[in-house]
Amino acid sequence: MSDTSLLETFPNPKPERDYEIEHTFPEFTSVCPKTGQPDFATVVVKYVADRACLELKGLKLYLNGYRNEGVFYEKVTNLILDDLVRACEPRWIQVETRWGPRGGISSVLVAEHRSEPLE
Amino acid sequence: MSDTSLLETFPNPKPERDYEIEHTFPEFTSVCPKTGQPDFATVVVKYVADRACLELKGLKLYLNGYRNEGVFYEKVTNLILDDLVRACEPRWIQVETRWGPRGGISSVLVAEHRSEPLE
Amino acid sequence: MSDTSLLETFPNPKPERDYEIEHTFPEFTSVCPKTGQPDFATVVVKYVADRACLELKGLKLYLNGYRNEGVFYEKVTNLILDDLVRACEPRWIQVETRWGPRGGISSVLVAEHRSEPLE
Amino acid sequence: MSDTSLLETFPNPKPERDYEIEHTFPEFTSVCPKTGQPDFATVVVKYVADRACLELKGLKLYLNGYRNEGVFYEKVTNLILDDLVRACEPRWIQVETRWGPRGGISSVLVAEHRSEPLE
Amino acid sequence: MSDTSLLETFPNPKPERDYEIEHTFPEFTSVCPKTGQPDFATVVVKYVADRACLELKGLKLYLNGYRNEGVFYEKVTNLILDDLVRACEPRWIQVETRWGPRGGISSVLVAEHRSEPLE
Amino acid sequence: MSDTSLLETFPNPKPERDYEIEHTFPEFTSVCPKTGQPDFATVVVKYVADRACLELKGLKLYLNGYRNEGVFYEKVTNLILDDLVRACEPRWIQVETRWGPRGGISSVLVAEHRSEPLE
Amino acid sequence: MSDTSLLETFPNPKPERDYEIEHTFPEFTSVCPKTGQPDFATVVVKYVADRACLELKGLKLYLNGYRNEGVFYEKVTNLILDDLVRACEPRWIQVETRWGPRGGISSVLVAEHRSEPLE
Amino acid sequence: MSDTSLLETFPNPKPERDYEIEHTFPEFTSVCPKTGQPDFATVVVKYVADRACLELKGLKLYLNGYRNEGVFYEKVTNLILDDLVRACEPRWIQVETRWGPRGGISSVLVAEHRSEPLE
Amino acid sequence: MSDTSLLETFPNPKPERDYEIEHTFPEFTSVCPKTGQPDFATVVVKYVADRACLELKGLKLYLNGYRNEGVFYEKVTNLILDDLVRACEPRWIQVETRWGPRGGISSVLVAEHRSEPLE
Amino acid sequence: MSDTSLLETFPNPKPERDYEIEHTFPEFTSVCPKTGQPDFATVVVKYVADRACLELKGLKLYLNGYRNEGVFYEKVTNLILDDLVRACEPRWIQVETRWGPRGGISSVLVAEHRSEPLE
Repeated sequence: MSDTSLLETFPNPKPERDYEIEHTFPEFTSVCPKTGQPDFATVVVKYVADRACLELKGLKLYLNGYRNEGVFYEKVTNLILDDLVRACEPRWIQVETRWGPRGGISSVLVAEHRSEPLE
Repeated sequence: MSDTSLLETFPNPKPERDYEIEHTFPEFTSVCPKTGQPDFATVVVKYVADRACLELKGLKLYLNGYRNEGVFYEKVTNLILDDLVRACEPRWIQVETRWGPRGGISSVLVAEHRSEPLE
Repeated sequence: MSDTSLLETFPNPKPERDYEIEHTFPEFTSVCPKTGQPDFATVVVKYVADRACLELKGLKLYLNGYRNEGVFYEKVTNLILDDLVRACEPRWIQVETRWGPRGGISSVLVAEHRSEPLE
Repeated sequence: MSDTSLLETFPNPKPERDYEIEHTFPEFTSVCPKTGQPDFATVVVKYVADRACLELKGLKLYLNGYRNEGVFYEKVTNLILDDLVRACEPRWIQVETRWGPRGGISSVLVAEHRSEPLE
Repeated sequence: MSDTSLLETFPNPKPERDYEIEHTFPEFTSVCPKTGQPDFATVVVKYVADRACLELKGLKLYLNGYRNEGVFYEKVTNLILDDLVRACEPRWIQVETRWGPRGGISSVLVAEHRSEPLE
Repeated sequence: MSDTSLLETFPNPKPERDYEIEHTFPEFTSVCPKTGQPDFATVVVKYVADRACLELKGLKLYLNGYRNEGVFYEKVTNLILDDLVRACEPRWIQVETRWGPRGGISSVLVAEHRSEPLE
Repeated sequence: MSDTSLLETFPNPKPERDYEIEHTFPEFTSVCPKTGQPDFATVVVKYVADRACLELKGLKLYLNGYRNEGVFYEKVTNLILDDLVRACEPRWIQVETRWGPRGGISSVLVAEHRSEPLE
Repeated sequence: MSDTSLLETFPNPKPERDYEIEHTFPEFTSVCPKTGQPDFATVVVKYVADRACLELKGLKLYLNGYRNEGVFYEKVTNLILDDLVRACEPRWIQVETRWGPRGGISSVLVAEHRSEPLE
Repeated sequence: MSDTSLLETFPNPKPERDYEIEHTFPEFTSVCPKTGQPDFATVVVKYVADRACLELKGLKLYLNGYRNEGVFYEKVTNLILDDLVRACEPRWIQVETRWGPRGGISSVLVAEHRSEPLE
Repeated sequence: MSDTSLLETFPNPKPERDYEIEHTFPEFTSVCPKTGQPDFATVVVKYVADRACLELKGLKLYLNGYRNEGVFYEKVTNLILDDLVRACEPRWIQVETRWGPRGGISSVLVAEHRSEPLE
């Protein structure tokens, strides 16, 4: 639902080695599609790059693109994962979203993907 | 002992992927069946959905339904697990209850279930 | 709204000295009069006794008495203060209530009273 | 810049006593007027009510109203203070905004008002 | 060295499922058999019940029974484990004791038992 | 109720200067005179010595002397203060006792004394 | 020693009210003039603006300007204070620098200025 | 990009045993090659020495050598790892870099190497 | 008891302003004169310089000089204060020593001095 | 380098069970053999006893014996491990030393031994 063309990559400077990269973005916000009220989350992306690394500024702009989108926790977590897989085709990647309390309930969602062809 | 019809579900938006969902509810309260005094707990539900995801508002109302029920820690933890299994038939689910001190003793109970037919 | 006859006192063992007593009760719960949903708070009582000290068991039972009462934060904080003043007639007393998040907003209320006649 | 008609009040249940009310809202967001990038803050409102208390749901909706407004830290802090003064005419009120890091710099702003006529 | 008849049990409400129960008691005290000085520990009991669950009040009274007993860390940790095994015959059980500093040294001991016949 | 002859002092090495000494003892225990159950507290002593300083080993043995005494929080806090005043006649002294939860309520008591004749 | 022309200001949007602004910059670094080794500090600026507020980007660039300057803690703290006073002529301002350990010693320096003419 | 001749080693005093050595350096700084702005990181080196151990002073000087170098997170993490491998030829080594927020995103990178010939 | 000639000073770069300097040294050790066992403390020095500032390296060497000296908490705290007063003649100075637990008791001592002639 | 005859043992009260014992000593100090400056560490010993347990007082005196010895981190960690192995011949033992910052670098070393004949 955000603009995936915002995501930019640069060549992995050490493709012959598997190493882990983790980016934590504590300022994610979207809108609850049922109530119209804003939701807030910390998004954590961990991945092992193949040929391409995610550029930080593009990642931020892409995540900011959900600001006024109405989307459920379960959907947006998988959506971000799918978009990042398409953008940098990593060997492995995990997306974790940690949501502030709604009705007294705080939520954490974790989805991951290994480098097999994405349908 | 709570009304399981309060539990609502919605279709899993990404059933082809196993991903973990965790909901933490720090405001659970029930009543000690021996002393009649209130007990307080944080309830943590972690699961991998199959076809259905647990809707947050219904989960909250279901958990609130124990407010005036007299029930032991060991029983209520397994009861919540069984009710949630029936409600959303997940691939895997874990219920953890963390209880405030009673007589100086704090307790934590953890029960889990994998997707095999429930008796 | 709770039964003030539950509050019991015992003679201050050192009335010739001003000293501070603080009791913290993290398991207060009442009901929101608008939504019918439960509210949860930590109640902190600080006081300087005159002739009478508050007995702990009675204080707990009195606070538990709000469990199913519908009452606003602002009213219940002042109500507890007034009831405790009547029960032990302290030289000084302060009641603080710290409420868990509702609609994303956490609240703290603090009211105090010095030993002048209560209307 | 937000809609002040969203702010609602109810009668102070204990106007004969000065007592402090504090509401903390960790999910405030607005937009930087220079860069167009989102800003995030925790807003803390402390006040001593006179005749009217701030209703929580209205306060939340009012603060949510800044979501897509471009406004500097210094201006929005004073604006919220002025709007709340007009809405409930408190005896004393303080607004604190705590902003996440921008360019590596985290900021906190604190403004307060005592009950004298507002121009 | 404490009175094991204080330990009481009740039937496991869900014996067909393996689930973990953890009780933490931060107020254990015994006496050093060499110096006669008091020792203080937090005792953590984790177990998977078979047919019987440990009743909380009895567990507390049993642990309080060491208050004036002279016993080494290594001995009391194994003694508690053996007594609890005899009392509830669990599928698995672990006893951890965390001792405050003596001569600048803090200690933690962990012993566990699986459901095989106890000599 | 403990043996005050255990308290020992040594000459203040700098009586011409007012300086503060604070001793924190996290291992105080006594017995509830109503229930017979043990109570646990951290005792903090702050004082400005006049001619005599409290010796640490004696202070520890004196505080250990309450181990099997039945005494209320309010009484023991003032008793320790009075005994320490008699033992070292300080210019100023404060005794704080922080008690673990009983019936869900944690308590803190603070009493102090300035160098005027003790009745 | 940094370029004060980097500091920019904008008009105080509420000059008729005294309110406090605090900016925290955890990434300050300079060089020890004796050893040539790098020093690291968190710089906290608190002030009450008069007619001008400090612009964040300029403040960051100004503080970055010390990166390769050799300067003692005591001097740089006062230098930053003097430069900020000249740049925005505040009613009150305080500069705090918190330095990481050197030779095992961590240091904090705090200097402030009130709006009287600067020599 | 730093001077690897700064790295010094000394003979492993216990080469017949595999044991882990961890050095944490919270004061690493380099420069962003795109924006020219400084970056700050904590660098953690964990290794199992073979014949040579890394000398601490040389490690510090080597890490300080990146102070004014423009280099991406991904490149510098692998560069440090390669340089340390060459310097002490360890049985195993891991380099972790934890970077402060840039554009609201904090990053952690982890790369490791086992003792096989380095190309 | 340490060598005061180790203490070095340098001219205060801003004597016309009162500003506070704080140095924290977590690695102080001396010996208990009664038991011969080592004592460990964190020493915090806060002062407002007059004409001279304390040089860090000398302060460290001076504090290290107590390593094998037998001295009571009360004496060494005042001794350090007196030596620092003589060394830099500050407008105000405070020495705080925070000692690890001995016999279960942790201690903190605080002494200060204002710029009046030292006997 | 310390006197191993200080290490004393007592018979393992439960040799038929493998259980873990952990002792943490936060007050270890030795001297850097290069600079002559003191080093400070927390030493953590974890072991599974065979026939003998380490007596606490002897362990403390043994560790205190390094106070004025010049020794590198890598050497002293292995030396303590070897001495403890000889003293109590445990089934398994691990020694961890956590050192305070030197030149900005904090270090942790971990060595372990299983019960095979020690050369």
